[in-house]
Amino acid sequence: MPRRVAVIDLGSNSARMAIFERTSRLGFFILREYKIKVRLGEGAYENGGVLQDAAMDNVFCAFSEFKHFIKLYKVNKVLCAGTSALRDAPNSSVFINRIKNELGLGLKIIDGKMEAFYGGVAALNLLSPLSEATTIDIGGGSTELAKIKDGKIIDTISLNIGTVRLKELFFDKKDISGAAKFIDDMLSNLPNGFNSANIIAIGGSLRAISNAIMQIKKHPLKLVHNYSYELKEHSSFIEKLAFANVFDLKDFPVKKDRYDTIREGAMIFSKVAKRLGGKKIHTSGAGVREGIFLSNLLRPGIKFPQNFNPSLRSLQDRFIETSNPNTPKYAKILFDVLKPLHKLDDKYANELVIASKLYSLGRFLGFYSEHAHSSYIVQNGLNYGYTHEQKALISAIIFYQGKLISELGEFKELLPSIDEVRWLSFLLGLAKAVNISDEMEFSFVNHALHIKGIKNFFMVKESIKKLVKPSIFAITFD
Amino acid sequence: MPRRVAVIDLGSNSARMAIFERTSRLGFFILREYKIKVRLGEGAYENGGVLQDAAMDNVFCAFSEFKHFIKLYKVNKVLCAGTSALRDAPNSSVFINRIKNELGLGLKIIDGKMEAFYGGVAALNLLSPLSEATTIDIGGGSTELAKIKDGKIIDTISLNIGTVRLKELFFDKKDISGAAKFIDDMLSNLPNGFNSANIIAIGGSLRAISNAIMQIKKHPLKLVHNYSYELKEHSSFIEKLAFANVFDLKDFPVKKDRYDTIREGAMIFSKVAKRLGGKKIHTSGAGVREGIFLSNLLRPGIKFPQNFNPSLRSLQDRFIETSNPNTPKYAKILFDVLKPLHKLDDKYANELVIASKLYSLGRFLGFYSEHAHSSYIVQNGLNYGYTHEQKALISAIIFYQGKLISELGEFKELLPSIDEVRWLSFLLGLAKAVNISDEMEFSFVNHALHIKGIKNFFMVKESIKKLVKPSIFAITFD
Repeated sequence: MPRRVAVIDLGSNSARMAIFERTSRLGFFILREYKIKVRLGEGAYENGGVLQDAAMDNVFCAFSEFKHFIKLYKVNKVLCAGTSALRDAPNSSVFINRIKNELGLGLKIIDGKMEAFYGGVAALNLLSPLSEATTIDIGGGSTELAKIKDGKIIDTISLNIGTVRLKELFFDKKDISGAAKFIDDMLSNLPNGFNSANIIAIGGSLRAISNAIMQIKKHPLKLVHNYSYELKEHSSFIEKLAFANVFDLKDFPVKKDRYDTIREGAMIFSKVAKRLGGKKIHTSGAGVREGIFLSNLLRPGIKFPQNFNPSLRSLQDRFIETSNPNTPKYAKILFDVLKPLHKLDDKYANELVIASKLYSLGRFLGFYSEHAHSSYIVQNGLNYGYTHEQKALISAIIFYQGKLISELGEFKELLPSIDEVRWLSFLLGLAKAVNISDEMEFSFVNHALHIKGIKNFFMVKESIKKLVKPSIFAITFD
Repeated sequence: MPRRVAVIDLGSNSARMAIFERTSRLGFFILREYKIKVRLGEGAYENGGVLQDAAMDNVFCAFSEFKHFIKLYKVNKVLCAGTSALRDAPNSSVFINRIKNELGLGLKIIDGKMEAFYGGVAALNLLSPLSEATTIDIGGGSTELAKIKDGKIIDTISLNIGTVRLKELFFDKKDISGAAKFIDDMLSNLPNGFNSANIIAIGGSLRAISNAIMQIKKHPLKLVHNYSYELKEHSSFIEKLAFANVFDLKDFPVKKDRYDTIREGAMIFSKVAKRLGGKKIHTSGAGVREGIFLSNLLRPGIKFPQNFNPSLRSLQDRFIETSNPNTPKYAKILFDVLKPLHKLDDKYANELVIASKLYSLGRFLGFYSEHAHSSYIVQNGLNYGYTHEQKALISAIIFYQGKLISELGEFKELLPSIDEVRWLSFLLGLAKAVNISDEMEFSFVNHALHIKGIKNFFMVKESIKKLVKPSIFAITFD
């Protein structure tokens, strides 16, 4: 697979393009994203799905513009998929031929189950793992569900409920109860196998709702991906949004360019999530485009290898020239050796080891305040596969790495206790200090940590003496 | 010159090593810095300059440790210079041979005028330009001065006044007035040609004093390099520090590891700066090590080409794969075309153009919040050659780039008026939006900006419409 891959996704509402950059075989990040509201579905729902000329011209212009950026960024491969509006359209093939002949883009219609599958692939690989969950991807023309269980996608379905569809058929005619009935009818045949307490929310409308909740709750992290909330706590807010007067939308923390279909999105989500028995909502910033990219990248499989994280790898690829394997190795050993003292839950060894792989990211920007730069890069670049609590903890371990912590600051609500953060950051500071030798030995005897292997390293010993110990014990250099 | 170069500088107080990483022919940044307090001068000043065995052993250990990191970072070239303590020592050659034979490091003694010259080279190339200035580099054994005029180093001198020297000869014996007299005697023969209103402060003691003043003034930027202050405003603070009781140092915002010689440094600085008629103090984080590196890099010259900035280049080298020359080009044209409207001082075109070369730095970390990442990287990586006011402005232009600015935030005191920042950030937003075409044309007629060349670019026009215009005028797309 080439280094840069663009995935274009043509929905009923928007045409979107993401440019993925691979930084190694499986490491990647998103270099650019583009969105044009082409409203391909406009006028179609009342005309038997027939695409209107003006709408098709919009798409043509949008794709021409995308092509410009494909060239600018030297993208080597373009995958181009059309969803609900194209599926519904009797005149789609004329349009697809025009795109092929005049722009050289091979636009493929993907069926509803495939669209649901791609959403599932994105969620499966790019969210922190859930043993059971159902994705809900609400688009302009349709809504896709994928049931995930034990790391597999076990069922998919596509429902002809979408925001633009509801808007044109009901909301624009002020027939709100008609919209509600339409959704209820569609959901009556939904198999119970899709029920799940964990709901994965995909698509622009659901990201907007999660963003609104993050703002209301003053959530300390900015990125919406992997943000979770309890449905019970926010269901009345979502319903209020669904039934709001359009002129009152300005009172909701929602961006203007979402006003046109956010009420429809909120209504669909509210009803589908309730129908599935959803309790906890997990937001996915990744959806169909990521799913298409990953299906190509991981072919013939659909999953990353066990313990592989594409963000972790990609940050290492981009920012760390040579990673020092001693740091994570010693971090884990020190965690175990000092266990009688710190008594931390074993699960935190994971975050400590990840922090010890990423603490030097910031060196790429410069030596001064390396710890702060690394912490910033983790907060903003370790996007996939970790909960916000994990990201905050990894970032805090790296920020402090054995320095004095008097209070935990803005991420406090996401972090474990200050003593636990002190211990983990101390362990990183220590592992980092001793990483210069491949043959260190550690033992904890008589309330003293004995470190063997750096007797002649003056500077290293000085830096260890400067670490703030989280409890009272001696350190000796043998 | 190889990619990685280490420069070791052995003073009377510390052995320091900086690892420079070249990112292109002349672009570079500092990858790592190390410091070990070896106290080579310890005991020497009262023994005719003879280096003591314990002190030499300290240096030997320090250099062994440096060698470890030289290997770890695959450094291709090591430059190793000894200053005052070695110059004074009758037994230096034995020591230099030991270092050569056992560690393979070629330690060279540089004479006082050369040491002053290296400080001058660093200041000349890495500080924002001053038409006339004198560097003061205070070390453990000596103090070096270099007079800079019109971009040339026109005179240098080395004085045997240093912090460790004063400490051992006077301060340790509580003979503070003896120290003052010693300095005054030394300064009585200093030629008047070194007098200058602009003083460039080099060395650890003077960085510590500048850092203290930055803390007192709650300066919004963290890096001390290129921080300036009025001597008159802070001379009483510096004198208070010079004459403080050692037990009262904790009341000064100075780090503990500076306590041992900060009073001596403050006294020397206070007297030398006054003697030179200094009015404005410019802090240089760069000194002898940078001077040695640059003299090798720029040989046979000692200056970067006109308009070349090594930090700007190095940030581009590291973070921007292909820079788009249209952005700075259009930024400058738009600045000129809209001049009747914005009426900005022409000097700001410079910061606008630099911002338009660096606005996409953050894309390397990821697409989301690119503007914030770029702004962060500028604040922390655009180290050399700009005043703090320039850095703050470049960073603000990039952060806002045409978005709504309701207040200027923490950097307000360093920035021009909010209207000027609005205009500059709008101009960047506009230049960035239209950079996709090589053949744009702009004109300002009848209170309307006419933009020619993007008529068919839907997304580009949308993004221009979203920019917050800093005054009332129309934009048309022809």
